[in-house]
Amino acid sequence: MDLQCIEAVRSYLLDLQERIISAIEGFEEGAVFARDAWQRDAFSGGKTCVLEGGTVIEKGGVNFSEVSGDALPPSATAARPQLAGMPFRVMGVSLVMHPRNPHVPTSHMNVRFFSTGEGSPIWWFGGGFDLTPYYPYEEDVIHWHTQAKAACDPFGADLYGKYKAQCDRYFHLPHRGETRGVGGLFFDDFNSGDDFATAFAFTRSVADHFIPAYLPIVERRMTTPHTEAERDFQLYRRGRYVEFNLVHDRGTLFGLQSGGRTESILMSLPPHAQWRYNWNPQPGSREAVLYERYLKPQDWLGLCHSSS
Amino acid sequence: MDLQCIEAVRSYLLDLQERIISAIEGFEEGAVFARDAWQRDAFSGGKTCVLEGGTVIEKGGVNFSEVSGDALPPSATAARPQLAGMPFRVMGVSLVMHPRNPHVPTSHMNVRFFSTGEGSPIWWFGGGFDLTPYYPYEEDVIHWHTQAKAACDPFGADLYGKYKAQCDRYFHLPHRGETRGVGGLFFDDFNSGDDFATAFAFTRSVADHFIPAYLPIVERRMTTPHTEAERDFQLYRRGRYVEFNLVHDRGTLFGLQSGGRTESILMSLPPHAQWRYNWNPQPGSREAVLYERYLKPQDWLGLCHSSS
Repeated sequence: MDLQCIEAVRSYLLDLQERIISAIEGFEEGAVFARDAWQRDAFSGGKTCVLEGGTVIEKGGVNFSEVSGDALPPSATAARPQLAGMPFRVMGVSLVMHPRNPHVPTSHMNVRFFSTGEGSPIWWFGGGFDLTPYYPYEEDVIHWHTQAKAACDPFGADLYGKYKAQCDRYFHLPHRGETRGVGGLFFDDFNSGDDFATAFAFTRSVADHFIPAYLPIVERRMTTPHTEAERDFQLYRRGRYVEFNLVHDRGTLFGLQSGGRTESILMSLPPHAQWRYNWNPQPGSREAVLYERYLKPQDWLGLCHSSS
Repeated sequence: MDLQCIEAVRSYLLDLQERIISAIEGFEEGAVFARDAWQRDAFSGGKTCVLEGGTVIEKGGVNFSEVSGDALPPSATAARPQLAGMPFRVMGVSLVMHPRNPHVPTSHMNVRFFSTGEGSPIWWFGGGFDLTPYYPYEEDVIHWHTQAKAACDPFGADLYGKYKAQCDRYFHLPHRGETRGVGGLFFDDFNSGDDFATAFAFTRSVADHFIPAYLPIVERRMTTPHTEAERDFQLYRRGRYVEFNLVHDRGTLFGLQSGGRTESILMSLPPHAQWRYNWNPQPGSREAVLYERYLKPQDWLGLCHSSS
C-alpha cells in the first residue's frame, strides 16, 4: 500500500472523528467531549474522545486508534494464515453513543483500514453501523436503514442487502436468541477488486452517512417524556449490550486479549446497566413489542428480493 | 462411579443450597429467595434460587444444577481428550451474593462433582470460594482466609497454600492487571488418589466453611454508614465483576457456549453496575488502598513458606 493512501485514510478518519464530535456536541448544553490523546509505544496510539454526563448523551465515545507492527500475530489472522509474520498497519474510528432518554436508541459505528504496510499489495476496509433501540419507532428504523441503503447504492445495488444481512448475523446474541438491535450495515475484507479509490469512497460513504442516519432520530426523541419504569427497562437492556460486547464482539475480545488499551476498548460499555433474574416483558406491552418485532432480523425497507 | 455415591453428592448439594439460603434469609426483613425449579430436558435441570431487592443482599443467587449425557462433547474436555464421547454426569452448587452496602464484600462459592457415569472409574470434585471487597477491612480478609485454611488443614498442610494460590491465579483480570478480589480457595480435578470418601469430605469441608467465613463479615459491616460516593464506587467496581464473569470465567463461557440455561448462568451478574472512562482513585484515598493492597495476591495469613 502506497504511503500517500495510508495517510489519506488517516486524515479522513481524524476529520471524521472531529465532525462526529461536533455534531453530537450540538445537542448538548455545555457538556463536551474530553480528548485524550495516548501513545502506548512506537507501534500503537490514538485519540479517545469521551463525553460523560451529557444532557442528551449520557456516555459516548469516539475513538481513533492505530496499531502497527513488524510481524502480524497469528491470532489476528486466523482467517488468513498466510499473513502471519508480515508487517501490518491497522487504523480505525469506533464510536458508541449511550443516550440518557430511553426513547433515543444507542448507536455504534466503526470504520477500519488494514494493510500489510507500505509497498505491500494486501489491504482492505471494514466497518458499518448499527442501532439499538429500547422503545423503537418504526419510522426511525426505516430512516436508519434508508440512510444505510443510500450509503451503499452508488457502489452496487446488491451491497445494502448483503451488508444488512451480515450486520444481522454479526450483532446476534445466541445465548439470548436476540439480535442486539435493528442492525444496519457490517462489511469486512472490502477492497473492490483491489481498486483503492472505490473501496475508500465506499467506506467514506458509509461513515459519512452515520450523522444523517442518527442525528434526526436523536432530535425527534430526545425530549420525549419517559417514566422511571422506561428508564429501568433501558438500563436492563443495556445489560444485553454489555453481554454482546464482552462475550461476542470480536474487536473487543481481540483488543483485550492482544494487550490493547483497555480504557479505550471498554469505552463502549454503558454508564449504568442492570440485570434482573429471568425478567420477561408483559404480553402486549411496548417492551414485548421490542422483543417480538425488533430483536429479530426484519426486511425494514420491504426489499426482501435483494437480501442475500 | 457407584450410583449411591452420586446420590450422596446430590443430596449433600441440595441440602447445602437450603442451608445457605436459610442463613442469608436470616439477615433479611421479609425478603426471601424465589425458588425456581427447572427441567430443560431429560439431561439437564436444576433449582435456581434468587433473592432480589433484599435489605442486606441486593441480589443473590444459589443454584443447584445437573447435566448428564451419553457422550461428553469434546469442548468440555480440552484438558482430557480421552474423555470425549463418554457418558458423563456433572452437578454442582454455585452462589453469588451482591450486598447492598458497599462495606459488605461480594462473595462467590462453587462446588461441583464430575463423573463419567455409573460404573465408570473417572470422577473428580472441584470448587472453592472467593471474596470481593469494595471497602476492605483487613480483619475481614484475615477471617475469610483463616476459615479457608481451617477447611483445608484436616486434609493436608499444603492444601490451603496450593488452592489459595490457584484462586489468585484464576480470579485475575489480565486486561486490568488486578485480581477480582482477595481470593480464597480454588481447586479442581480433586479425587484424593481415587479415595471418594476423603475427596467428598474435603469438598464438604470447603463448602461448609462458606457460611462461617462469610456471615460474620456480613454481620459486622451491613449497618456501616456509607456515602453516595461509596455506593458509586461499589457500582463501578461491580463493572469489573461483570468483566471477569463475561470475559474470563470458564464456567460462564462454557455454559453460554454449550447452550446452558442463560438465566441461571447469568444470575451471577450484579443488579446494577457502572462504567466510567479512565477512572482512577485519588492517591491516598480508601479506594486507592483497595487497588494498591487488596487487588493483588497477598499472603494474608503470614504463611509465605507454605504457598506454592
